[in-house]
Amino acid sequence: MEIERPYLLFLGDVHDQLAAKTAQGVVDWRPDWCTGQMRLEGCQADCGLKDMSIDEAVAAGARTMVVGVVNSGGILPDHWISEVVRAIEAGMDVATGLHKRLSSIPEIAEAAEKHGAKLHDVRFSDVAFATGKGTKRPGKRILAVGTDCSVGKKYTALALDQEMQKRGMKSDFRATGQTGVLISGRGIALDAVVADFISGAAEWISPANEDDHWDCVEGQGSLFHPAFAGVSLGLLHGSQPDAFVVCHEPTRTNMRGVAHPLPTIQQVIDRNIEDGSLTNPDIQCVGICVNTQKLPEDEARDYLADLGDKYGLPCVDPIRTGMGPIVDEIQKRFPS
Amino acid sequence: MEIERPYLLFLGDVHDQLAAKTAQGVVDWRPDWCTGQMRLEGCQADCGLKDMSIDEAVAAGARTMVVGVVNSGGILPDHWISEVVRAIEAGMDVATGLHKRLSSIPEIAEAAEKHGAKLHDVRFSDVAFATGKGTKRPGKRILAVGTDCSVGKKYTALALDQEMQKRGMKSDFRATGQTGVLISGRGIALDAVVADFISGAAEWISPANEDDHWDCVEGQGSLFHPAFAGVSLGLLHGSQPDAFVVCHEPTRTNMRGVAHPLPTIQQVIDRNIEDGSLTNPDIQCVGICVNTQKLPEDEARDYLADLGDKYGLPCVDPIRTGMGPIVDEIQKRFPS
Repeated sequence: MEIERPYLLFLGDVHDQLAAKTAQGVVDWRPDWCTGQMRLEGCQADCGLKDMSIDEAVAAGARTMVVGVVNSGGILPDHWISEVVRAIEAGMDVATGLHKRLSSIPEIAEAAEKHGAKLHDVRFSDVAFATGKGTKRPGKRILAVGTDCSVGKKYTALALDQEMQKRGMKSDFRATGQTGVLISGRGIALDAVVADFISGAAEWISPANEDDHWDCVEGQGSLFHPAFAGVSLGLLHGSQPDAFVVCHEPTRTNMRGVAHPLPTIQQVIDRNIEDGSLTNPDIQCVGICVNTQKLPEDEARDYLADLGDKYGLPCVDPIRTGMGPIVDEIQKRFPS
Repeated sequence: MEIERPYLLFLGDVHDQLAAKTAQGVVDWRPDWCTGQMRLEGCQADCGLKDMSIDEAVAAGARTMVVGVVNSGGILPDHWISEVVRAIEAGMDVATGLHKRLSSIPEIAEAAEKHGAKLHDVRFSDVAFATGKGTKRPGKRILAVGTDCSVGKKYTALALDQEMQKRGMKSDFRATGQTGVLISGRGIALDAVVADFISGAAEWISPANEDDHWDCVEGQGSLFHPAFAGVSLGLLHGSQPDAFVVCHEPTRTNMRGVAHPLPTIQQVIDRNIEDGSLTNPDIQCVGICVNTQKLPEDEARDYLADLGDKYGLPCVDPIRTGMGPIVDEIQKRFPS
């Protein structure tokens, strides 16, 4: 898949900023790929880009309309469909992370056919994966794992890649979710892969590479989430990480969407080492990333310091304090 | 799904008996549904049925050609496609457990359309599953887990159900693989479900039931198999078993299809209790089922006796010695 850039981010008329988190993720990590945003009347989200009509976006060079919002049910409402069709008529491709294929909507399929537009459904992959082999392949890999879903695994992997690039290390961000695919222009939404091929797809995502090259792999779910642990385990086995970082959200009271309590960070470290050693016996934890967004500055600093003392590992908030200490640790443990 | 019977079992030209385990499973548990088998030149599998051509099978009353073999990758090779088309032209329906829909193969779709044949892809389900919730539901469940793939988990679950029925206990066999679906006429091929819904589908397969009713759930893969552990874990979490049986094949030297060594039975017991306690803290191991087919009678007897001493659990071969001792153990531990 090659999604042509730059993007026009379509925000529709969603009711809050959270519904635009895919678009926001693209803006945060690839601001130079974004020409502008397009909002319909009543839209309550704002990604801080210049508001543009379809014609203005095309004039500014936009190549792909990214539907970077989700409404409940993950469906494209009728009054969004007509805008997507207009974008196609104006010469743009379209990319979405919805559960339904764009080509399954007749008006869109017809317009794309007529105008030669490409439709990118980033949740779907046409790759014929093999089942996982578990054979060790060259290159280094670091995986962001979590105490829960939605605790900052994607941001952690992106920030690791960014910090490594800054230091002149060889690295790639490897997307495993739809937002990550839009941010990196490639990758696989792993949660949409057929179950038999989870670890095979994870192997495909981070292929053999140079010995001193790092794949920074976006994690999914949690080994302790009763709905998604299977995906987490397949990804752990397939990505066979040399190192992992535990991601955590300290104000969470139970696992997202279910009644289960959160595991401790120690349990997450132990279980990932236990399970991960099946495909990489040398797997090790190199740090903890905490999303401290909901804590005041001083409380966040204390929390990270206490955690660092307790676990003897670098503990950071990738957004607030940066990824430096964890990449220091990686360079110390894996000298090239 | 209603698959018309009797079946003609198509074995293709697979290279070993293990590749025909779907066909063999149907023969073993539903011999009266099978008219005969059809083999191509070079076929190394044999299910012990009368060899038939397509025309002979139709003359003998066969209604459905069951493609009861799988090659690696689960794809239908071209020289099998032409036989499937011939079966359709001769008046049969077709059922397979492959990863690709029969209707996605143009020659087959065309022939089915022209001759009014039904195409059954037992791996695909049109159920819209929810994601797993992990909430405890009433009814008892027993899961067959394995040291590896293809070690007798389906047979174990079928034999448990059979023995329970014989004793007048309330039970159901719950199929999670394509052979199980062909044998029981219902269920879900769990390995073909989209990864996000593995444990949700497992919850759907064994719904709330009476307190003294047992679901005998067919296991999938192994928590120690680098390709399929994600499916095993999702099934373990979703089926939330009260009890499990470890299935083992004592002559296996490495995990099927990969280079990994086998785990010990103790490791399998410990890991299933550790992982399974997330959704059922009372999970316990009630026995060990060994496929002793490749051992001589006396060696098999000694092997089972030694294992019983070592683990303090009833150890049986479901085919050779029967499931009695394990169901005794279940009745002792779970008095109704």
